[in-house]
Amino acid sequence: MTARDIALVGATSAYGEAIRELLDERDVPLGRLHLLASGESAGQNLPFRGSNLRVTGLDGFDFAQVGIVILAAPAAVVETLRPQLVAAGCAVLDLSGASAALSVLPRINGDRLDQLPAAAWLGVPLAAAQAAASVAAVLARLNTLHDASLTACLAASGAGRGGVEELARQATELLNGRPVEARLFEGQLAFNLLGRTGAATADGYTAQEHRLLDECQQVLGARLPVLDVTAVQAPVFFGDSLALSLRAQAPWQLEQVLEALGDEPGLALDEELDCPSAVGDALGREEVLVGRVRLHPRDARRLECWLVADNVRLSALTAVQLAELLLKQSA
Amino acid sequence: MTARDIALVGATSAYGEAIRELLDERDVPLGRLHLLASGESAGQNLPFRGSNLRVTGLDGFDFAQVGIVILAAPAAVVETLRPQLVAAGCAVLDLSGASAALSVLPRINGDRLDQLPAAAWLGVPLAAAQAAASVAAVLARLNTLHDASLTACLAASGAGRGGVEELARQATELLNGRPVEARLFEGQLAFNLLGRTGAATADGYTAQEHRLLDECQQVLGARLPVLDVTAVQAPVFFGDSLALSLRAQAPWQLEQVLEALGDEPGLALDEELDCPSAVGDALGREEVLVGRVRLHPRDARRLECWLVADNVRLSALTAVQLAELLLKQSA
Repeated sequence: MTARDIALVGATSAYGEAIRELLDERDVPLGRLHLLASGESAGQNLPFRGSNLRVTGLDGFDFAQVGIVILAAPAAVVETLRPQLVAAGCAVLDLSGASAALSVLPRINGDRLDQLPAAAWLGVPLAAAQAAASVAAVLARLNTLHDASLTACLAASGAGRGGVEELARQATELLNGRPVEARLFEGQLAFNLLGRTGAATADGYTAQEHRLLDECQQVLGARLPVLDVTAVQAPVFFGDSLALSLRAQAPWQLEQVLEALGDEPGLALDEELDCPSAVGDALGREEVLVGRVRLHPRDARRLECWLVADNVRLSALTAVQLAELLLKQSA
Repeated sequence: MTARDIALVGATSAYGEAIRELLDERDVPLGRLHLLASGESAGQNLPFRGSNLRVTGLDGFDFAQVGIVILAAPAAVVETLRPQLVAAGCAVLDLSGASAALSVLPRINGDRLDQLPAAAWLGVPLAAAQAAASVAAVLARLNTLHDASLTACLAASGAGRGGVEELARQATELLNGRPVEARLFEGQLAFNLLGRTGAATADGYTAQEHRLLDECQQVLGARLPVLDVTAVQAPVFFGDSLALSLRAQAPWQLEQVLEALGDEPGLALDEELDCPSAVGDALGREEVLVGRVRLHPRDARRLECWLVADNVRLSALTAVQLAELLLKQSA
């Protein structure tokens, strides 16, 4: 095993591609990068640091030869790999939400990494959880949070390339007056909103809503006592949009809130932009764009804001930042 | 003046057309219907009760000859008509939100009509306010509401025909790889969400959000102490979608909540549908469709639901129901 070698599972997914680009751009001090993918995606050559790396199939790959595995593959694939990964003893950064032992955002609860064994299984929170938790963490330094509500309008790309393709196909069908076919989504998504992303679990929440709740709770802990979540499937290809309400024990001071949000790395508060949009402003950015920060006209303990983020880029960035921290620990 | 005669201003708008259809379908016992529109829309003939009515221009129309005026025109048009309407002494049903003296929903605060003079100026709440207030009113009979949060994803048709046309044009431009032009909206709406509908006022809320707040407060009164509102412009032609969270003093009983919502006229709780969508399920319906009713997994005082409604049809229906009540009073 070479601690500085990394295996990237799902290398040809949108998330996998963004991770490979960021490992390159940020000059992450890794040893060898292994690109892995299942089935038909294997065999391609992808650029990395001036050379081409061949994408290898998952079958027969010996995970014991790497120190870190980044999982940018669907939850079902992750579950089949779990026994091998546990046996190999590598550190795992899992974007799938399948089975994270601990959700970590470097700037908020990154100190948790210090207490973990080298072979920890870490969850990379959904971009929507990252956005909401990042804002809540800043505001929790100014005031005691009471509760919050989040409506997360999630992009089709959150469902992978298949989601992007289905939205494009449905839109073309509609604009050409043809009947709309739904395969991956629960119905017509083009020029419509679907009130959930995937099927409901027994309590009425979807798996993704439970994931958002759990990730926010793990990252923020007692700083946010309770959060309402609705995750909506939006007819948007890339970029998540969130309406977040935060209620505190004491009235907010708007100037102080704006200053704290503006100073926070990872957040971009552009007062001129004021109302950023996912497609118009967030795509390609590594920050969560914060807009429409306002206090309720009748109760200054209630604060509202509008957050947009490049969902793929934000998740990939956090995975790469966690890899950097793990490499630093093993150095 | 003939008390049973009605003038419909904005007769050729989407809302005006729906009102004319409902006055016909519901056999509203009116006298004569005057169809009015500004500028180029005048001169058309539109069907009503088996004959064709000519749409007249607004200039020179004597409002003193009718008992009820329904305003399905933009706020700017309504403001120019105000002095004439006040002088004429007719009852006004205003869909524009320009200047409502009192917002009324027949099933919730319809009793307010009994205390009003015949020449009252009544506001027809936005469909999103109607949907949220209708659900909150039912639930306020079961439990004491503490507060609520609403994210209203509003259709392009809320901005009139121009909104529908702009969304269609933008979508076609995008799918043909042409640059997207924004005129009515603040930016690209197709395959994107805009975090507000129109410009912000001094406190950061939009005029439409203030309208939603005021209408819910007027209709519900003390039943809902405080409400957070974000009104988002969705890339949807027709039909509003709402994520609503309601917090109560005591835990909710889910069975009791479902029974009360299912029994309420004007609401449709289809448990098999579970997650209705605006385009897939609500269009053409006169009810607010209620789905995804669920309790927070860690705090049963917190209830979430997903509401969809045909925004044009719902507003038109309420205007017509109010006209029916006024006609009954004058009979």
